[in-house]
Amino acid sequence: MDLEHLSEKLTEASVSGFRDRTKRRFSLPVAARSHSDSRRSSIISSCSDTSSYTGSSSDEEEGSPREKEQVTASGFTDFCVKNLRQAEFGRREIDIAEQEMPGIVALRERAGKDLPLKGAKIVGCTHINAQTAVLLETLAALGAHVRWAACNIFSTQNEVAAALAEKGFSVFAWRGETEEDFWWCIDKTVNTENWQPNLILDDGGDATHLMIKKYPAMFKMVKGVCEESVTGVHRLYQLSKAGKLNVPAMNVNDSVTKTMFDNFYACRESIIDSLKRSTDVMFSGKQVLVAGYGEVGKGCCQALKGLGCIVYVTEIDPICALQACMDGVRTVKLGEVIRHVDIVITATGNKNVVTREHMDKMKNGCIVCNMGHSNTEIDVNSLRTPELTWEKVRSQVDHIIWPDGKRIILLAEGRLVNLSLSSVPSINVSITSCTQALALIELFNAPLNRYKSDVYLLPKKMDEYVASLHLPMFDAHLSELSDDQAKYLGLSKAGPFKPNYYRY
Amino acid sequence: MDLEHLSEKLTEASVSGFRDRTKRRFSLPVAARSHSDSRRSSIISSCSDTSSYTGSSSDEEEGSPREKEQVTASGFTDFCVKNLRQAEFGRREIDIAEQEMPGIVALRERAGKDLPLKGAKIVGCTHINAQTAVLLETLAALGAHVRWAACNIFSTQNEVAAALAEKGFSVFAWRGETEEDFWWCIDKTVNTENWQPNLILDDGGDATHLMIKKYPAMFKMVKGVCEESVTGVHRLYQLSKAGKLNVPAMNVNDSVTKTMFDNFYACRESIIDSLKRSTDVMFSGKQVLVAGYGEVGKGCCQALKGLGCIVYVTEIDPICALQACMDGVRTVKLGEVIRHVDIVITATGNKNVVTREHMDKMKNGCIVCNMGHSNTEIDVNSLRTPELTWEKVRSQVDHIIWPDGKRIILLAEGRLVNLSLSSVPSINVSITSCTQALALIELFNAPLNRYKSDVYLLPKKMDEYVASLHLPMFDAHLSELSDDQAKYLGLSKAGPFKPNYYRY
Amino acid sequence: MDLEHLSEKLTEASVSGFRDRTKRRFSLPVAARSHSDSRRSSIISSCSDTSSYTGSSSDEEEGSPREKEQVTASGFTDFCVKNLRQAEFGRREIDIAEQEMPGIVALRERAGKDLPLKGAKIVGCTHINAQTAVLLETLAALGAHVRWAACNIFSTQNEVAAALAEKGFSVFAWRGETEEDFWWCIDKTVNTENWQPNLILDDGGDATHLMIKKYPAMFKMVKGVCEESVTGVHRLYQLSKAGKLNVPAMNVNDSVTKTMFDNFYACRESIIDSLKRSTDVMFSGKQVLVAGYGEVGKGCCQALKGLGCIVYVTEIDPICALQACMDGVRTVKLGEVIRHVDIVITATGNKNVVTREHMDKMKNGCIVCNMGHSNTEIDVNSLRTPELTWEKVRSQVDHIIWPDGKRIILLAEGRLVNLSLSSVPSINVSITSCTQALALIELFNAPLNRYKSDVYLLPKKMDEYVASLHLPMFDAHLSELSDDQAKYLGLSKAGPFKPNYYRY
Amino acid sequence: MDLEHLSEKLTEASVSGFRDRTKRRFSLPVAARSHSDSRRSSIISSCSDTSSYTGSSSDEEEGSPREKEQVTASGFTDFCVKNLRQAEFGRREIDIAEQEMPGIVALRERAGKDLPLKGAKIVGCTHINAQTAVLLETLAALGAHVRWAACNIFSTQNEVAAALAEKGFSVFAWRGETEEDFWWCIDKTVNTENWQPNLILDDGGDATHLMIKKYPAMFKMVKGVCEESVTGVHRLYQLSKAGKLNVPAMNVNDSVTKTMFDNFYACRESIIDSLKRSTDVMFSGKQVLVAGYGEVGKGCCQALKGLGCIVYVTEIDPICALQACMDGVRTVKLGEVIRHVDIVITATGNKNVVTREHMDKMKNGCIVCNMGHSNTEIDVNSLRTPELTWEKVRSQVDHIIWPDGKRIILLAEGRLVNLSLSSVPSINVSITSCTQALALIELFNAPLNRYKSDVYLLPKKMDEYVASLHLPMFDAHLSELSDDQAKYLGLSKAGPFKPNYYRY
Repeated sequence: MDLEHLSEKLTEASVSGFRDRTKRRFSLPVAARSHSDSRRSSIISSCSDTSSYTGSSSDEEEGSPREKEQVTASGFTDFCVKNLRQAEFGRREIDIAEQEMPGIVALRERAGKDLPLKGAKIVGCTHINAQTAVLLETLAALGAHVRWAACNIFSTQNEVAAALAEKGFSVFAWRGETEEDFWWCIDKTVNTENWQPNLILDDGGDATHLMIKKYPAMFKMVKGVCEESVTGVHRLYQLSKAGKLNVPAMNVNDSVTKTMFDNFYACRESIIDSLKRSTDVMFSGKQVLVAGYGEVGKGCCQALKGLGCIVYVTEIDPICALQACMDGVRTVKLGEVIRHVDIVITATGNKNVVTREHMDKMKNGCIVCNMGHSNTEIDVNSLRTPELTWEKVRSQVDHIIWPDGKRIILLAEGRLVNLSLSSVPSINVSITSCTQALALIELFNAPLNRYKSDVYLLPKKMDEYVASLHLPMFDAHLSELSDDQAKYLGLSKAGPFKPNYYRY
Repeated sequence: MDLEHLSEKLTEASVSGFRDRTKRRFSLPVAARSHSDSRRSSIISSCSDTSSYTGSSSDEEEGSPREKEQVTASGFTDFCVKNLRQAEFGRREIDIAEQEMPGIVALRERAGKDLPLKGAKIVGCTHINAQTAVLLETLAALGAHVRWAACNIFSTQNEVAAALAEKGFSVFAWRGETEEDFWWCIDKTVNTENWQPNLILDDGGDATHLMIKKYPAMFKMVKGVCEESVTGVHRLYQLSKAGKLNVPAMNVNDSVTKTMFDNFYACRESIIDSLKRSTDVMFSGKQVLVAGYGEVGKGCCQALKGLGCIVYVTEIDPICALQACMDGVRTVKLGEVIRHVDIVITATGNKNVVTREHMDKMKNGCIVCNMGHSNTEIDVNSLRTPELTWEKVRSQVDHIIWPDGKRIILLAEGRLVNLSLSSVPSINVSITSCTQALALIELFNAPLNRYKSDVYLLPKKMDEYVASLHLPMFDAHLSELSDDQAKYLGLSKAGPFKPNYYRY
Repeated sequence: MDLEHLSEKLTEASVSGFRDRTKRRFSLPVAARSHSDSRRSSIISSCSDTSSYTGSSSDEEEGSPREKEQVTASGFTDFCVKNLRQAEFGRREIDIAEQEMPGIVALRERAGKDLPLKGAKIVGCTHINAQTAVLLETLAALGAHVRWAACNIFSTQNEVAAALAEKGFSVFAWRGETEEDFWWCIDKTVNTENWQPNLILDDGGDATHLMIKKYPAMFKMVKGVCEESVTGVHRLYQLSKAGKLNVPAMNVNDSVTKTMFDNFYACRESIIDSLKRSTDVMFSGKQVLVAGYGEVGKGCCQALKGLGCIVYVTEIDPICALQACMDGVRTVKLGEVIRHVDIVITATGNKNVVTREHMDKMKNGCIVCNMGHSNTEIDVNSLRTPELTWEKVRSQVDHIIWPDGKRIILLAEGRLVNLSLSSVPSINVSITSCTQALALIELFNAPLNRYKSDVYLLPKKMDEYVASLHLPMFDAHLSELSDDQAKYLGLSKAGPFKPNYYRY
Repeated sequence: MDLEHLSEKLTEASVSGFRDRTKRRFSLPVAARSHSDSRRSSIISSCSDTSSYTGSSSDEEEGSPREKEQVTASGFTDFCVKNLRQAEFGRREIDIAEQEMPGIVALRERAGKDLPLKGAKIVGCTHINAQTAVLLETLAALGAHVRWAACNIFSTQNEVAAALAEKGFSVFAWRGETEEDFWWCIDKTVNTENWQPNLILDDGGDATHLMIKKYPAMFKMVKGVCEESVTGVHRLYQLSKAGKLNVPAMNVNDSVTKTMFDNFYACRESIIDSLKRSTDVMFSGKQVLVAGYGEVGKGCCQALKGLGCIVYVTEIDPICALQACMDGVRTVKLGEVIRHVDIVITATGNKNVVTREHMDKMKNGCIVCNMGHSNTEIDVNSLRTPELTWEKVRSQVDHIIWPDGKRIILLAEGRLVNLSLSSVPSINVSITSCTQALALIELFNAPLNRYKSDVYLLPKKMDEYVASLHLPMFDAHLSELSDDQAKYLGLSKAGPFKPNYYRY
């Protein structure tokens, strides 16, 4: 497996017609990532991120972790991380992260006695940071054995990896892996003595890919794959179509609860935050064009209206357009308003929604950013021409200057502005982790014929359970059906309360 | 077919666990119906309703229409209505209704040349009023032959029926039919010389029922059934399960566009209107409990918050509860707030959500009403006890007085308050009519094997088309995909733009 | 004093450049008034209005009350009403009204022991209905002697007047007084043996006017006048300017609390109610032009946006225009949007804001109404030309039809739509009554030199007290300053908390 | 004048019972200031701030500017700045600032020909940054001669001062002045040959103070003082009371337009921004207590509700409490909700609103911050006790840790969180500058007896003019009165449109 293959996969991902909020492998420069990661640790966060990364940078010179001998205090050696001495700091990060993830902690408490994952042997391949460490330790607390690698060569928090290793987890990951390191680490999670994994927790599909290609016999013996990225899910569907998926797979990326938070609620806040942090724009009275009135667009519009913006929407789908109308948002063609709007936000999943022609017509000072799909929505390449001057005014903020002096303000070079310039709320991370844990529990405990070699959504009841784990955060109290009511509705008192196809 | 059977069907309908917004047959007293109907004719309405109904009442004495000889100016006799002399007035009503139904008028214009229903022979059984007359005349304009009866013995607007007859349509319907009249009228639409219907447009399932029972051979030859009521759809699914549905059926009740309007947008307005018209309550500062945070509940909450209410929600479904939290609405158990709220609104689809025990705890002046399912949500029967006094203060408004003088204000005796005390917006009627027309066109023109003997939802593309027909009302302009973009997204430029399972 | 004089006063009122929400004397036909009045009795209302007015109509034939001998059960005769036998019914109306007026009831309870009006002799001249009866009885409970007449020849609820008389109050009023009756009644409240009034509670200024003209010596001995109508206040300021106001007067019409409710909060609800009741319009997606962004305009805009309208505003004042911008409302000239808006609402206090030229450009079905000043804002007279057809479609709803068939929908013939087609919330009535009672208490108890012969606003502290009396309705709990905090802020712990000039 | 005096004045300022948004002299550490300033340059900003401050820090070693000989390219020497070589960079900053201040630029264009300040000799004492430079150059463009010093020893942008000097303005200011430098600089603006100033533009009152004390004869000859800080205004009122104010003074701090923006609109955005930037909190579903429902509190509540928070309010003023109720916000005592809220925001202008006792009861993770008056609202000192641990997690973010591990998150140590952690929108700066320029024009051109030796608010008409200068930013179009309408309303067509006491 070589770099060529890797870039091939990368290309494959970037042309797929899906929105990917989770899988940002290789697409962001290191600086941006670490910036974004440092933002992640939120409410009960600490300012130690900086020091840790300073530490990391000094580590850079020390040579490959693969060449070092590493032994924990208790004599454990089945792992490979950057620097075990960072374990204490990493442990503190994990402790803080737990406070942000009430759902997964509640799950650990509720299910801890039943050990629903007793006997599970999990190969994990995800970002490695404080939040995923909480997930990993929860899976262990529920009875599982785990071996873990990173799904991204840049995103590992070395301190967290060290803390996990110190506690006796077989972790193989460090920030700044080479391509070869990357696959070596994953291989270590799969191929070791006396280890036949029976579950895969994947983020991007690399562990799955490796097992199918390199250890097909082992792969057939797993009880299921749990995948959380758009790209990985896309690959699973392709495998399934091609008849090459020999085990059940759970698409947790599209679970109802997770999607609702990722698309509507998180974007409602991050659009405001991204614009404010990067440009200090005052929202009141601004005219804003939001391209696309799907869930992301709806979230953007609601937030912007709430702060006094006048919002316009473009849509290709008449049902969404009609919703925009009924929500009090004028539905226009981009050309109708492009000359006088102050802010343009794309959220379509489409490409070239904002073209050079549009940008030529924008007024001086117009802000342009993307909340939608990867970096295709704004035709940024069309701006890289000799007559236009680019002036970087802040990190992730460029002024593009026309010959007549007009400037437009381009954020994050057209990449997802909320990932680049805002933070991922911890409740989203908590919901995703719960969803992953429950998907693994379901796959592990499902009766033999419940799932075939296909891709499944999380069962409604488990989706509902994820939600219920987060209600105490809001001091929310659920009502319960009486026997009589349950019978009347033809429902179980424990749910599911809606049919599988019901979204929200 | 006798009264016993009829009441049996009624019982069947009332215990089914579904919300029924359209089929109110026999369940409302005459006064309420005519009241509600007179509200229906909205924006470009006229005050003539009163006079017309006065006219009707004088008609009552004239004996059964079945015994009269009726001939139109042009010599047409294949119909049976109350009073042909009312035709001119009915025509004006139809003209006004057309102005409220831009979608169906647009459809008539766009499809008029293609005559997509040329050769169609439609048996119709719906409410007969100005709006459905517009639908009927549209079907005819698209090429269909139609024969029509009423789906409700009380809801026929005699003037409209007269106008249709005068224009040469075979209509069999009048206000105040007997049970026997009812079935006689339907029979007339089915069983006549040289008439083999090939489509059924049903509202409640009675025409379908009659054909299956009485003319099974004719029924098997129809191309499809289009049904728009919850009850009728429920009966179709039961027929399908029982293997007795020999033709395709289209469930238009659950089409995306229609549902969105009926549940969320219409309720957002009608909850305000119903409460204001009946009680003159000032909303600002009122504490309101909305039971259920489905689409109806969401609509209610949004409107009430917009007018300064403090809103609480109860939910059994943790996903909906979590949404309520994220929308800034406290999620509680009913018992936590029942003592201090000013208004209680049910929107759950469940039964006995508000019990006598709850009402015993409510404070003086608390308003109680139902936006949800038929009349089961509030346990109104529990209030019919000797120690409580009922005092009717307005039509549809009762004060229930406790021995200590406490009053609660019960609206519409627990029936759907928006149907009883508000109006159905004409855009909803327009959307429903378009959906019905397109469903008939689809069934009539579909290639042989597209539909089997099962119940189908309207295809996404047609659902989108219904929406698109209503965009001009809002001066909304749809964007179009470029070839390049369509290819990128893997979509046709004409839609459908979303997968079938996608709701909104 | 004759009819000529009366019509003169009427003219005077109608040309004054002020908004008058309270004084509708002679300006509405009887039918409209009784309609409006029947709406007034709200939350705990009863449907008895109808029966009572039926009763009244039978009374009409009985001849003038002035010619009848009237004695109550207890032998009291110093009053003149229509029909004492209606007393029981009127008492029930008053009892119900009390439940709607928690503020005035709280005042009665709190101040009942102190008898702050002991020794007060009040001439009252207001509308006579259940709500003002509660005020009158409260004044009595606080120690005052009262004599009362109606300020409007059409607005008296005869049953209420009877109930007051039966209880021993000297009331002189009935529905349908002649001009002569009107002044005779007021005269009876002033000129009787052993009666030197020391306070006047006026609504329109007629009692004040009569005393100044006819009993100048008596007038000089009153401690003060309390006036609640725009017209009456206007007359007081003119008297003051002319040096003819020999006593202090309290302008309760412009107290902070009252104004806030009348203009912003009440209009926020009544605009929705007025439009819905009269036209059944669906608000979602409608484009609405609100002329004027003062408090009434702000209330309209907030409500309409909350229900999904797209709102535009016109303004002449740049500060208000800037506020509209910051509130997310586009500020335009009327001509810019007149062709495509669905609804036009005036709220400027100006005249001819909507002209014939504008109406010629409106689109078919456009609704036009006035929330602002009397009936001047829409140039309705310009529509009374031969080429336009008026078609009354409901009470207060006219279609104006252009030669090409275009219709615009004019509400209440351009008069205040919320007074014509909606109800006055009872909390407003309660706030006004409290304000009047406190103004009388203040005038009666003020040290000699606090007030000169001038027009005053209610002192801030009393204004705050009115508000505090209504907080329990909302279960609202006020915080209290500690001694230390009060000292720090330089405030008394009991208020006033804001300087007099502070509005809100 | 010595340090003792200075600290005396400081104390005086800090105990005054007013909110001070503009004057932060000496109260913030240098780091905080530069941080805050770097945020200021917004929409069309540049990232050069950093480099400039780096430059500054290298300048620190060079010794006092007072000891250097400084000559511009054109030979000008009447100034004293840090480093003339920074002029080019400063000029670019000023150019960018102009783009953010459309109002002041419009004023320059409109009034440029009339030279309304021809003959004015202005002593200025303000913060010296790009925005104030635009003001200074505008005053010059309108005809004035100006001499300028800084009102704060830390806030001068040296590059901007250099750019002003290079252009020939007599500027005396640099970052890091000593106390002695501070007064020397101000003295240089007053006391120089052939210079009798006739206007003072002050921010904090130091220039005014110096002239009164040191040059009383000169002071008496000025036409007026324009003051924009709370502290300075407070001092002016005290001077006026004491009979020591011999000239008219204009309080621009309390002009209607400025106040509306500073308090309501700016806070509506900065509360969101401050909390998000510092804590990454997700707002949806959070329970928030806002202490105080004045304009700042109203702005906070509106923004928070718009993003899905559940908001509670505390109030001492019953009128504001009633408004909160009507706006759908529960009004409580702090103690009722303190145990379960997630965020506490003070906006009262009072002291010790949040006490140690309250903070003892808060739940783990509660965020506490101040939007109100200086740093008195939260009793931060009570947290500085041995049993509590302070942990700084970011700049301006401290965790206070209770012995049981509970943490509360304190922002900006209880100082104004929006000044510490958010930015001042440029439109606010623009409005303030316009207000100052118009106040100077008014004072300079007013007929002799219009103003006495007292403190005045900006005349309504000029306040309106400030607003009108900013309408083009929002593409807002003002309507104009016809002659007839103006006459009807008794207004001039050019305004003022409201009486002086009218706020909004």
